[in-house]
Amino acid sequence: MKTMTLYETVSGRIEHLISHGTYRSGDRIPSVRELSLRMKVSVSTVMEAYRLLEDRSLIECRPQSGYYVKPAFPGRLAEPETSSPDVKPTNVNVSELAMMVMQDTRKTGLIQLGAAIPNAELLPVDRLNRTFSAAARRHGVRSLSYEFAPGLEALRVQIAKRALSAGCAMTPDELIITSGCQEAIFLALQVICRPGDTIAIESPTFYNFFQAIEALRLRALEIPTHPRDGVCIDTLRRVLKRNKVAAGLFTPNFNNPLGSCMPDDRKNELVQLLADRGIPLIEDDIYGDLAYSIHRPKTAKAFDKTGNVLLCSSFSKTLAPGYRVGWIAPGHLYAEILRLKSVSSLGTATPTQLAIASFLSDGGYDRHLRKVRKIYARNAVLMAEAVSAHFPEGTRVTRPQGGQVLWVELPRKGDSLALYEKARKAGISIAPGPIFSSQRKYRNFFRLNSAMWSDKIRDAVALLGKFAGKDKA
Amino acid sequence: MKTMTLYETVSGRIEHLISHGTYRSGDRIPSVRELSLRMKVSVSTVMEAYRLLEDRSLIECRPQSGYYVKPAFPGRLAEPETSSPDVKPTNVNVSELAMMVMQDTRKTGLIQLGAAIPNAELLPVDRLNRTFSAAARRHGVRSLSYEFAPGLEALRVQIAKRALSAGCAMTPDELIITSGCQEAIFLALQVICRPGDTIAIESPTFYNFFQAIEALRLRALEIPTHPRDGVCIDTLRRVLKRNKVAAGLFTPNFNNPLGSCMPDDRKNELVQLLADRGIPLIEDDIYGDLAYSIHRPKTAKAFDKTGNVLLCSSFSKTLAPGYRVGWIAPGHLYAEILRLKSVSSLGTATPTQLAIASFLSDGGYDRHLRKVRKIYARNAVLMAEAVSAHFPEGTRVTRPQGGQVLWVELPRKGDSLALYEKARKAGISIAPGPIFSSQRKYRNFFRLNSAMWSDKIRDAVALLGKFAGKDKA
Repeated sequence: MKTMTLYETVSGRIEHLISHGTYRSGDRIPSVRELSLRMKVSVSTVMEAYRLLEDRSLIECRPQSGYYVKPAFPGRLAEPETSSPDVKPTNVNVSELAMMVMQDTRKTGLIQLGAAIPNAELLPVDRLNRTFSAAARRHGVRSLSYEFAPGLEALRVQIAKRALSAGCAMTPDELIITSGCQEAIFLALQVICRPGDTIAIESPTFYNFFQAIEALRLRALEIPTHPRDGVCIDTLRRVLKRNKVAAGLFTPNFNNPLGSCMPDDRKNELVQLLADRGIPLIEDDIYGDLAYSIHRPKTAKAFDKTGNVLLCSSFSKTLAPGYRVGWIAPGHLYAEILRLKSVSSLGTATPTQLAIASFLSDGGYDRHLRKVRKIYARNAVLMAEAVSAHFPEGTRVTRPQGGQVLWVELPRKGDSLALYEKARKAGISIAPGPIFSSQRKYRNFFRLNSAMWSDKIRDAVALLGKFAGKDKA
Repeated sequence: MKTMTLYETVSGRIEHLISHGTYRSGDRIPSVRELSLRMKVSVSTVMEAYRLLEDRSLIECRPQSGYYVKPAFPGRLAEPETSSPDVKPTNVNVSELAMMVMQDTRKTGLIQLGAAIPNAELLPVDRLNRTFSAAARRHGVRSLSYEFAPGLEALRVQIAKRALSAGCAMTPDELIITSGCQEAIFLALQVICRPGDTIAIESPTFYNFFQAIEALRLRALEIPTHPRDGVCIDTLRRVLKRNKVAAGLFTPNFNNPLGSCMPDDRKNELVQLLADRGIPLIEDDIYGDLAYSIHRPKTAKAFDKTGNVLLCSSFSKTLAPGYRVGWIAPGHLYAEILRLKSVSSLGTATPTQLAIASFLSDGGYDRHLRKVRKIYARNAVLMAEAVSAHFPEGTRVTRPQGGQVLWVELPRKGDSLALYEKARKAGISIAPGPIFSSQRKYRNFFRLNSAMWSDKIRDAVALLGKFAGKDKA
């Protein structure tokens, strides 16, 4: 008990100094040894205290350098509030607009704040390419041969090992390799749903989910979602009483575009709520590894006792979007997903699976993740600061704790579709709000990809702010 | 006119010598110069004559060696006759058995005569791996980045160029890259059909097509098919009068398992028949490049004047099954296929596309194909000879002119499911007949993968023949 109290006291002291401005964003704080001498406590006590502060995202450790106050989101702009979609099943038709945003990525001249492509500078290009070549050489004809579903065992072993850090104990036999997270989710929807079925989904959420729902002739039932805590469980519970819902499709960790991360108890509640009603929960965890804190959050799957959760993810946001290597842990729908994957494409490409399996088993993925997380956290803050500096009063912006996007709410009369057009002409791509809803809501919202940062991007955000200000006037 | 007559005379003379046993299978025939001197005709006349004999698959040129009599199928066993399925829409349920055959490929101890995996010794492993590594190095971060549908332009350019040899003039903009031919066909079925719809299809045909039909809750309407000339157009015409058919799914070139290749006029007839009725024709051309003759046959797409044909193919049988790189030329359904491909997986993996584009543009694919075709032609003959030598009287076997499989018909009471079980226990995998039909017909048929040949395989075929003979007794 004494130790507990002690390290909490130490961490409380440092937190006080940070919150009162002694140490500011980016400042170096005393080293462990320094503070241990100064406060006359043991080194291990200080280390415990610093770990606590790290866990709470107040400080960060930079290897070979020391501990620093983490960049914090600017306080000037408020956060958006809980969303308020019409809570009723809706036919979906967002494809055209969403396709435009995706096609923007092919225009190399544009400043890419639209689609959520990763920061190319952070992808381990040389190392992956070397791993790739070595794997191809080592495996010879195997790198060209079919790897029928469920996919490369060595890769499934690595994914199962890593799942522990997300609170999941799973075996390689519970996993099926897919062509990215998107295919995983598409397979899940196809296996679970029939045309006309209704899917409960966060609002706003990733436009590709709406496109998938539209392509499969399903209906979306959008649930209000809080930009920090995620989907409103109480509303969902009420909705399930009134509506027949075939599946829930949720992103508990860092919903795109909100950046919301459901606390563990809410995840648990969500899992039980759906399990009790026999409604499969399709979980998108593509951003789970991009938490800005030291530890990644648990998946909803971690709370799954009945095999009702279908966990979907990939390496597209952290290693190589173009490899199209993702996975699904489909719980009790394993056999059905395996069959559909086999039938629809036989299996996922072999050499990309070999390369990622080799990359993971060589180690260094965690080090890579730490680097990416740190820079994404910083870039999100820098972009939010630019929004704060250049956008009209009344603008709101999220303060995500992970992922790579910001969700910006313009004052009530703001029009993100007009802003999209104007921005495109000025060589900037953004993702307008209405594509994140089946109801074409969020007209005065838009999403910014915050993965990259440069002077050019700062100028682009300033220009967007100018456009938005004029619109208002 | 004189030259015409002359080279026809020369080729007729040689054909006579072959058919009467002067030159036998595998014998070297006189060189061009030799025959020119001997018959007192010009070198160019002999070359014309030899080209004609090559086109007719009677002789083959071996580089740096000369002209040889092509191996011919043994005459002892008859060919199977036109199939006679029940011509009515059928619900499909072949998955379990077909999955077993596919899963057999993962068992390295088995002699793989079941699934139609290519001959690994013929895949250009080192060259593809080198191309792959060089492409990754050259393209840097691009090899890791998203290549959203329709896919890599450089690859689409190469495919469009090659399509000319199949009689198709198409632009890169008409093509969409897919994860293999299977995904191309699955996308086509999804876009065209609704649950309950009926698909006209050859009988027998590739079991994965039935699995796809089953997964999408469609029905199969099996059309009698001749082992040389392909689907019976007259029956199809009659059937279309009585039945509402949503799409035709055909393999005009080297149907799997029959090896049938529709003559051009029948292809044309098929295309017009379906176009007149507004029924999309999904064409599987995965084996088109594996013709045993010098020139590959035209695709049905070559006769398509209205955009009604969706041509599907891949490099899985010729270069790298595990790369999962295929394509679709979807005609007037381009926009719909593009959208579904985007939504279901965003796009196909980038590095495999880069590698194949680079392999094709470097040249040498045609040389590679010539080598593969020659060996596949020889291995098919050798395997047919082994069947002829070891199977009971009354057995029939196809004489394909392309592809990599033989379709064996046992005497009436033969049971390929029992043979499959017995063979599996003896370490041999075959593909039993019933998986090639929605009606579980073809109980006394099975398919052999004839891509590989060795003493071990000869012994395996002999053992299969012994099992089949005992069954009969």
